[in-house]
Amino acid sequence: MGNEGALEIEPLGLARQEDCLEGLTVVEGGGVSSARGFRAAGVHAGFRANPNRFDLALVVADEPSPCAATFTQNVFCAAPIIVSREHLDGVSHGLARVLVVNSGTANAATGDRGLEDARRTGAIVGATVGCPETEVMVASTGVIGVHLNMETFETGVPLAYKALSREGGADAARAIMTTDTHPKEAAVSFSGEEIGYPGCTFTVGGMAKGSGMIMPNMATMIACITTDAPVTSDILHETLSRVVSRTFNKVTVDSDTSTNDCCYLFASGAASNGAEPFARGSRALDVFERALYAVCRTIARDMAADGEGATRLITVRVSGAQDDRDADLAARTVANSPLVKTAVFGHDANWGRIAAALGRSGARFSQADVSIDMMGMPVLRKGLPVPFDEEEALRRFERPEIDIEVDLGAGASSTTLWTCDFSHEYITINGDYRT
Amino acid sequence: MGNEGALEIEPLGLARQEDCLEGLTVVEGGGVSSARGFRAAGVHAGFRANPNRFDLALVVADEPSPCAATFTQNVFCAAPIIVSREHLDGVSHGLARVLVVNSGTANAATGDRGLEDARRTGAIVGATVGCPETEVMVASTGVIGVHLNMETFETGVPLAYKALSREGGADAARAIMTTDTHPKEAAVSFSGEEIGYPGCTFTVGGMAKGSGMIMPNMATMIACITTDAPVTSDILHETLSRVVSRTFNKVTVDSDTSTNDCCYLFASGAASNGAEPFARGSRALDVFERALYAVCRTIARDMAADGEGATRLITVRVSGAQDDRDADLAARTVANSPLVKTAVFGHDANWGRIAAALGRSGARFSQADVSIDMMGMPVLRKGLPVPFDEEEALRRFERPEIDIEVDLGAGASSTTLWTCDFSHEYITINGDYRT
Repeated sequence: MGNEGALEIEPLGLARQEDCLEGLTVVEGGGVSSARGFRAAGVHAGFRANPNRFDLALVVADEPSPCAATFTQNVFCAAPIIVSREHLDGVSHGLARVLVVNSGTANAATGDRGLEDARRTGAIVGATVGCPETEVMVASTGVIGVHLNMETFETGVPLAYKALSREGGADAARAIMTTDTHPKEAAVSFSGEEIGYPGCTFTVGGMAKGSGMIMPNMATMIACITTDAPVTSDILHETLSRVVSRTFNKVTVDSDTSTNDCCYLFASGAASNGAEPFARGSRALDVFERALYAVCRTIARDMAADGEGATRLITVRVSGAQDDRDADLAARTVANSPLVKTAVFGHDANWGRIAAALGRSGARFSQADVSIDMMGMPVLRKGLPVPFDEEEALRRFERPEIDIEVDLGAGASSTTLWTCDFSHEYITINGDYRT
Repeated sequence: MGNEGALEIEPLGLARQEDCLEGLTVVEGGGVSSARGFRAAGVHAGFRANPNRFDLALVVADEPSPCAATFTQNVFCAAPIIVSREHLDGVSHGLARVLVVNSGTANAATGDRGLEDARRTGAIVGATVGCPETEVMVASTGVIGVHLNMETFETGVPLAYKALSREGGADAARAIMTTDTHPKEAAVSFSGEEIGYPGCTFTVGGMAKGSGMIMPNMATMIACITTDAPVTSDILHETLSRVVSRTFNKVTVDSDTSTNDCCYLFASGAASNGAEPFARGSRALDVFERALYAVCRTIARDMAADGEGATRLITVRVSGAQDDRDADLAARTVANSPLVKTAVFGHDANWGRIAAALGRSGARFSQADVSIDMMGMPVLRKGLPVPFDEEEALRRFERPEIDIEVDLGAGASSTTLWTCDFSHEYITINGDYRT
């Protein structure tokens, strides 16, 4: 019964994102090491028992590079988050060279020893790569409340360092997976020709992991994006914040915000032939932001589609809200409703549950103004049910992506969120996660 | 796999509530018609196809009686809620005689025709019982967006009226069930001897339904409580609000607040031998409030224990919060966390998920001050893991009630919430609710 109704979920990929690809070129098979100036690796170090499973990833910039990051707002934030924030804000002045990620153990709720372990991880990696430990960003994912095995870092980091290559992105993406069913990567490139950087081609690529405890709050799950575009730390941070708020922060698998969420963006500038960094307000920065958006949105959607036990990606669009906060509240309440998510799993166009979720969301509207479409079929218009063809609905439920569109009829704000259905498999996965 | 790990859930009943029964006597098998001055009935009227399933309940006071109610805050609130509120606030000045409830159809998101249907229901009942329609409270539960079959009311109401009796409470409790696995009733009595009402014995009894779309917001699912104590409308309303905020409003099955939540409390005064109503600040009112609390808490806990697909009742106690809002936020976030609920289903003492839920709740605290117990076993002390006996944990998971106790170490406020685990059965029930 666990896999009842399950589709083979494949990465949705950039191919399905034509709407955000104008002026950009998809890098087929691209990822976190597609941009020039970066190498990556994923190896089995031993954090996991299964020798066939990678569990340690390294992403290394050839030179200290501007780095921006967003972190979880969870009060129980994990030790690696605290240490990486110190490195980035303090000593390293927004420059970094390395991201190291282990999977299997989250190093969260581990007290002072956890902080020491995270710092020691930075020291081991710094010594191996040849950079100050403050240029090392540290991330962990896995079980909460368990201490890291530091011997595994001692032996694993040199192994990963030796494996570093321009083609290592795919292995790195594999090494950071927990309950993900496939790695999540994307990359796009754009020409510098018409934006003041003749002869240059810039690339933005990245990787991320899901797929449970996912409802990022001003931060994200573990994601790493690299670019060879020339961008200073300040501008990099502003741009990343804007893009994350529209992509990773619009994903929810299960309403549970993780203790370990983080998103890193490194900019090597290696494709600029020494030209000036992109300036604020320039066309170059605008194209860069769109490229970053395309990569982050692709990975974010893919994260929702590969949510634990998911059989369908659900896209919730809310328009007609009084302001952005109301739009987000309404869409997030629908996207987190267990009743809506189980109805999609059961292929039941039970829009009453969408209405009930909207009504409790806290968004301001009048029920007589609300319209709802499911999978392109009108089901509610101005608060009144619209008869629809149940057979046709069943056919449309075969699609891998289920659209829910809501017009609150109360204003001009809108938003889009991504989530997935709730299946038997979710219960199975999370009933025995530690066993 | 649907029933994997499922216990036979029985009503937890008053027997397990010793802590709130001081000075009260449990009325064995008692319910909504235990108090004097009330009769009740439950019949099969035809809202449901299955002729063996009751679907229409009547609770009738012999005389117009003070009545208090709390209603859902959902913007998509259902037609019967709107009509009952009009009746109670407006024309009937806090007096009412009848509650009529149908199950199978919620009469929510049904526009003007829904309002007309709810008013017409009141008129049919009023004509049958012999009272103004404004003394009739109307409630519906079932599928959203479907119109009521009014012919079923025309034939069903006289049938239910004929069946009214002092013993009809059990049938009424059965008639309001939807996905509940058993009816939810309780009653207690207390002597008037030492509280200024010599020779009198007062009773408080009630019924309610669950068991999905349950997270009441300043209101509750459908519940009806009756008493033969003499209490005026104003005091009745104040008392009900206080008790509901500590009982029904502390239940969450799935974080989904219904469109049809309502709780009614009727006070016939029939056991007072014509004495004055209970005065504000009197010992009599104090005992009455404790009796009401005992009945509502019993039914509320039972509602959580019988949540859709539940195999365990989960009681979440949070102490050490800065204020009541923080205590509720922390407890509610833990109680609604799909990861916590699936861990209990899987008998996994994965307290890291509790910590993660607390951390994202919005409650103010420092992780180094937090302690957590599961089923009486310390698992976290001052932010640090405490090794515990996993075998013993597995044994304690066999209990029907799983206690989670959290001390935030940030203040003096505390609260208790009740919820249930998330099972395969929840997915099954809600994947095909309409089919």
